[in-house]
Amino acid sequence: MNGPRRLDTREEGFESSFASLLADRVSISTDAEAAAAAIIAAVRARGDDAVAEFTARFDRVTLTPERFRVTEAEIEAADAAIPAELSAALDLAAERIAAFHRAQMPSDVAMRDASGVELGLRWGALDSVGVYVPGGKAAYPSSVLMSAIPARVAGVERIAMVVPAPEGMLNPLVLAAARRAGVTEVWRIGGAQAVAALAYGTETISPVDRIVGPGNAFVAAAKRLVFGQVGIDMIAGPSEVVVVADGANDPRVIAVDLLAQAEHDEAAQAILITDDRGFGESVAAAVEEELASGPRAGIAAASWRAHGAIILCRDLAEAAELVNRLAPEHLELAVAEPTALFAAIRHAGAVFLGRTCPEALGDYVAGPNHILPTSRTARFASGLSVFDFLKRTSWVSADESALAAIGPAAVALAEAEGLPAHARSISLRLAGRAA
Amino acid sequence: MNGPRRLDTREEGFESSFASLLADRVSISTDAEAAAAAIIAAVRARGDDAVAEFTARFDRVTLTPERFRVTEAEIEAADAAIPAELSAALDLAAERIAAFHRAQMPSDVAMRDASGVELGLRWGALDSVGVYVPGGKAAYPSSVLMSAIPARVAGVERIAMVVPAPEGMLNPLVLAAARRAGVTEVWRIGGAQAVAALAYGTETISPVDRIVGPGNAFVAAAKRLVFGQVGIDMIAGPSEVVVVADGANDPRVIAVDLLAQAEHDEAAQAILITDDRGFGESVAAAVEEELASGPRAGIAAASWRAHGAIILCRDLAEAAELVNRLAPEHLELAVAEPTALFAAIRHAGAVFLGRTCPEALGDYVAGPNHILPTSRTARFASGLSVFDFLKRTSWVSADESALAAIGPAAVALAEAEGLPAHARSISLRLAGRAA
Repeated sequence: MNGPRRLDTREEGFESSFASLLADRVSISTDAEAAAAAIIAAVRARGDDAVAEFTARFDRVTLTPERFRVTEAEIEAADAAIPAELSAALDLAAERIAAFHRAQMPSDVAMRDASGVELGLRWGALDSVGVYVPGGKAAYPSSVLMSAIPARVAGVERIAMVVPAPEGMLNPLVLAAARRAGVTEVWRIGGAQAVAALAYGTETISPVDRIVGPGNAFVAAAKRLVFGQVGIDMIAGPSEVVVVADGANDPRVIAVDLLAQAEHDEAAQAILITDDRGFGESVAAAVEEELASGPRAGIAAASWRAHGAIILCRDLAEAAELVNRLAPEHLELAVAEPTALFAAIRHAGAVFLGRTCPEALGDYVAGPNHILPTSRTARFASGLSVFDFLKRTSWVSADESALAAIGPAAVALAEAEGLPAHARSISLRLAGRAA
Repeated sequence: MNGPRRLDTREEGFESSFASLLADRVSISTDAEAAAAAIIAAVRARGDDAVAEFTARFDRVTLTPERFRVTEAEIEAADAAIPAELSAALDLAAERIAAFHRAQMPSDVAMRDASGVELGLRWGALDSVGVYVPGGKAAYPSSVLMSAIPARVAGVERIAMVVPAPEGMLNPLVLAAARRAGVTEVWRIGGAQAVAALAYGTETISPVDRIVGPGNAFVAAAKRLVFGQVGIDMIAGPSEVVVVADGANDPRVIAVDLLAQAEHDEAAQAILITDDRGFGESVAAAVEEELASGPRAGIAAASWRAHGAIILCRDLAEAAELVNRLAPEHLELAVAEPTALFAAIRHAGAVFLGRTCPEALGDYVAGPNHILPTSRTARFASGLSVFDFLKRTSWVSADESALAAIGPAAVALAEAEGLPAHARSISLRLAGRAA
């Protein structure tokens, strides 16, 4: 036996092994918090100068504030240099992501009730948002599409993207994706200093209302610290997949699905849940064969050995229970009846149904977002969507007769809460009607 | 001239005065953060014992863990002692709040596109939530209804309410409201220790998935610190109202509306925006008369003098611009054509249309939530709603033909991003089809 830990729901030690699997996911270090806080304070105090200093220190590139912003000409030149096949793939992805996010747009609520009160809920777009895109080797054009397109579909007018340019390097595909996604400003800065600049503004960068997108520990800590000044999305942890697969799958295909998650990052987690012990061992063997070569085999092997797991369960109903406790970011259901199994799943970020629907499809072109809740937060959080870029305003309209119908109850409650002006703001108007 | 600051958009110093008004809203002190962090660490390490110690220290009540939970018998006894008029008012409020929140429930998305890919978004309720209710004098039954009813409407099965009981005192109306709101557990604890217990669990209190509801600076700091372990709603600041009123209003009625906000808290903020200088001064005079007596006049006067403002503007179009910059929690539009003015408002938590619809109606019985974004966060945040208790799972289903249609684009993007197993998880399946 080689590879990752094995668990078996029929064995005595299962609960404690499973508990350690649940506890596996890491959280932000306080070191990152302290460093991020110092960077934010410096950017608030000294603006562009501080951003330039941190950029020189962390990204090893010297920039004057006039050079923070990537010019239209640079973006056009990058886009023009993209191979035709990739350009078409980006177009297809952008179109499909936009179509799925358009289908999510909510409707306003407006009602008039028996008391004559009219009331409702009106959705509106944020004025401006910041999109954080990791730089360097992990600068993924797909993440640009996934974070900016929902903002554009929601109706956000100003979409400011920040992406660090280590040693001055920017990925042309990232710029090409920004153009297709409707990004209105691209800034070649990153880290906690970029989060601070977006939250508080500098001489050259206007503040935004909300900051979204994944980043490293310093970015995550900075987002947590500016929360309240601006909105933020979830704090992203390492990526995860749970694959539920029965014995009728090709072990090699499932092995590659697990490695597609493991190759992201040494801290990533890939878990196989199966009701077939022999199939589980075949997958483990196929993973080892796949790990024998390839440019990302080292990362994938480290992830698989440290965080991977094969869980043997009695049946698919038990598999669903385990999935709900894991609340994974990604879930593949490679079984004969995936729709029936999906009905038993309560907690997962994104689900891929059936044997011919690998998770990687959703990373790029399927349409749903790939920025998803990690570290078991799918219990309460959701993937990025148009809802991240919309807000609601409730409204009420009551004429004198409607006020007379429901006002006295409000007066009674206000008096019981010891808030006399609350009560009087209603009773004065009712007295006016009586007079 | 007496009372609060006056601003006039036609005067030269307006922009700097308005900027100081925008900066007026306070934020969490770092003292509260450090204290909350210590309390959270103690509760994580020592569970119930730590909760009991902090409860003894801060609420001056000695409780064994068996007494943390308020019993069904205590809740029933409290409810039975409520006067009939208040019981009916709570019933009316609960019914109206539930009806409006039911109307907000979103629909799932399911679509099949031209490539044969099926995809969708499925909404589901959280399993468990914690509702924080401030205790002592500010223990408002209306806030219990506003925080717990949306959770019940969303379908949350476990709704755990925490409410501190200073010197052992609990407001019977709060317990009666909890019963009507569908709260499933009531715990007589509060502060950062209650937030920690809800986030991490103790021997007697099971952890929840999300914590909502307003609290003092320590509660707000604790919520910020447990964010990620559990979900949280916005960090609540002092309450605010902006009243836009033309000269055709009764100055006394508008004065009382302003004081209904000011009486909440010395840090509350009430702002009048009017296009009629004489009316503004009449309101100021009426406020002074109202402040001459009443049980909350001291608090209201302190709020009005420190944070209140009367802003004279040229016309209602300019008023709308000022409102959008203030992004107030509450907005009253006491003008002849409130619907037209509302169309120009982009940022506000809750809006009250017309001269006969005071904000206090929304605090109790109108139906929309009164837990709303403060401190200008209505730019990006929304009032509490069923959406706080729901999450989305996206799903994709692709058969072999759909995979063949969109898979190659995903393969191209995965290879461009340097993620070979991503590409191979698709190409292996396409090869299987070709074979």
